[in-house]
Amino acid sequence: MKETRAGWEENVRQVVPYVPGEQPKEDGVIKLNTNENPYPPSPKVEAALRGEKVADLRKYPDPTAEMLVDAIAQQCGVTPDMVYPGVGSDDVLSMCFMTFFQSGKPLLFPDITYSFYDVWAQLYRIPYLAVPLDKHFHIQKEDYYTENGGIIFPNPNAPTGIEESQDMVEDIIQHNPDSVVIVDEAYVDFGGTSALPFVKKYDNLLVVQTFSKSRSMAGMRIGYAIGSPKLIEYLNRVKYSFNSYTMSRTAIEAGTAAMEDKDYFETTRNKIIETREWSKKELARLGFTFPDSKANFLFVTNPKLDAKKLFEDLKQAKIYVRYFDKPRINQYLRITIGTQEEMQALIHFLENYSQD
Amino acid sequence: MKETRAGWEENVRQVVPYVPGEQPKEDGVIKLNTNENPYPPSPKVEAALRGEKVADLRKYPDPTAEMLVDAIAQQCGVTPDMVYPGVGSDDVLSMCFMTFFQSGKPLLFPDITYSFYDVWAQLYRIPYLAVPLDKHFHIQKEDYYTENGGIIFPNPNAPTGIEESQDMVEDIIQHNPDSVVIVDEAYVDFGGTSALPFVKKYDNLLVVQTFSKSRSMAGMRIGYAIGSPKLIEYLNRVKYSFNSYTMSRTAIEAGTAAMEDKDYFETTRNKIIETREWSKKELARLGFTFPDSKANFLFVTNPKLDAKKLFEDLKQAKIYVRYFDKPRINQYLRITIGTQEEMQALIHFLENYSQD
Repeated sequence: MKETRAGWEENVRQVVPYVPGEQPKEDGVIKLNTNENPYPPSPKVEAALRGEKVADLRKYPDPTAEMLVDAIAQQCGVTPDMVYPGVGSDDVLSMCFMTFFQSGKPLLFPDITYSFYDVWAQLYRIPYLAVPLDKHFHIQKEDYYTENGGIIFPNPNAPTGIEESQDMVEDIIQHNPDSVVIVDEAYVDFGGTSALPFVKKYDNLLVVQTFSKSRSMAGMRIGYAIGSPKLIEYLNRVKYSFNSYTMSRTAIEAGTAAMEDKDYFETTRNKIIETREWSKKELARLGFTFPDSKANFLFVTNPKLDAKKLFEDLKQAKIYVRYFDKPRINQYLRITIGTQEEMQALIHFLENYSQD
Repeated sequence: MKETRAGWEENVRQVVPYVPGEQPKEDGVIKLNTNENPYPPSPKVEAALRGEKVADLRKYPDPTAEMLVDAIAQQCGVTPDMVYPGVGSDDVLSMCFMTFFQSGKPLLFPDITYSFYDVWAQLYRIPYLAVPLDKHFHIQKEDYYTENGGIIFPNPNAPTGIEESQDMVEDIIQHNPDSVVIVDEAYVDFGGTSALPFVKKYDNLLVVQTFSKSRSMAGMRIGYAIGSPKLIEYLNRVKYSFNSYTMSRTAIEAGTAAMEDKDYFETTRNKIIETREWSKKELARLGFTFPDSKANFLFVTNPKLDAKKLFEDLKQAKIYVRYFDKPRINQYLRITIGTQEEMQALIHFLENYSQD
């Protein structure tokens, strides 16, 4: 691309390209690589989409997404002025980075974590420090007592699945009254405990959740942040100065329907938790070890198997999992919990697999 | 909000709040304030949405939005590697600001223009110069011969509706080989001439269009940029480092259907052009003057009427138009072209209106 570099190219922002997890287009794939939910969205989402007034798409959406915000507020037990919706939690988190981490002091997050934190920090020119997890992949709370310009960590963490206690979460918030602390709870609904009760107590805490995992709506792009009305007001100010209409009419309608169907949400997440616990036993039986995951994935390693080769051999068998070629974790695979049948197929493959 | 300012608030990005055009929720409103299309989207959009596999929403969308990109490329007569799609043209333009205007030299745009350019420049800390239009609201091409870090202007311009000639557009591109030049063609489909033929000739030209106006899909949030494969590659690199999955599965399907229905597009845009030309004659008859608009709106003034008072009186009568309380244009109203019936209702109101 650089052989005939034009003058205007000198002014272009240079970034490290990010490669998302594969979205194979072939049929018959068992797709355990991007932490999607194996079950379809609530039947109420289908009803909402089938009933949508398509003619109204000619009009801009409600910029406040009031209907969706109200539904989220009600399910989360907060007031609507404590909810900020966005186009997936990536959009919400990116907006948070842009809004809250402007001090010039380093943003702190774990060294093994969601792979977008450092790219957003670079994009917005926010200095950051990737704080090493301990050897069991746990956060050491004392590491977050130092001066900083903000803190973010997922809980449960990705790609490990490890959940830290709410005592630790509160301790980190209490030690950082001068920073915005973001707890990224993309995976909290699979048996984890949410920090939501703390948002009424600490005005600097933001909890971010998503419709992409536990609500089976990765394809619709909806996420949200919950925090004090002050934090939400700051986010809205930046958002309105930037792009007034982010959530489509369709996303607002479908998201509202998904959020209101609590029974379906409970049923499907419980099925995934059950399959995860079954998968843990089977993988342990086959010699795999893994941190005790509270998420919809397992982060597994096996002393007898090279992870990268296993990743490639699984792909040959049309079973897609995720491999990260990064320090400390390059002998691990992240395996999303699929349906019971999909996990049985995976176990069946592994029972008959060896690298000898 | 500032009375009890916490420590973390020192690190928050401060912005000038932007107020979008009103989206009234009451019924019976004639809504001529946000340049929406008065006609519904193509029946093929409805068919696509009704036929969508809702179960597939559990999966992430195709990050490349290949199907939509192909449809846009085909309609615009370019190759798919010359198309960058986004969540409305605001999202596309904002990404362009972030990607291309990094030189530290001032970005140039007209002083009377789309109201987001200066806010994006401020957001990304891009220096800028708002170049005065002449007294007839026209661009003077020589103003764009000075050293700069980029150029953007809408054509037709907003809120004036004035179209500059393709000779002038090409002249500005030719004088600026070291800058990315963006022509924002949100309103080009209502009788204007597109700069698209130039994208194959100049690798620094980006043409941005939207589904929100001529495709009747403001509620779905789809826009796109067309330019040289080099420009598109740079945009994609930044986008993937930032947010891999921006376009929802639903937007990709609905957008593809809309783009493919060329007949419906022609029919509805011709109806709007016809109603616009009728409205011009009627408004002239009532003493209004306006630049010769090639857009789906008219920018009108009347020496006998105070624009702000007229704006408010129209709102009382449930006719919403747009008023900008800004220097040079605070005696103008921007009136979106609605259906023939809606414009007749407006003319009827004005025929019986006086401020004496």
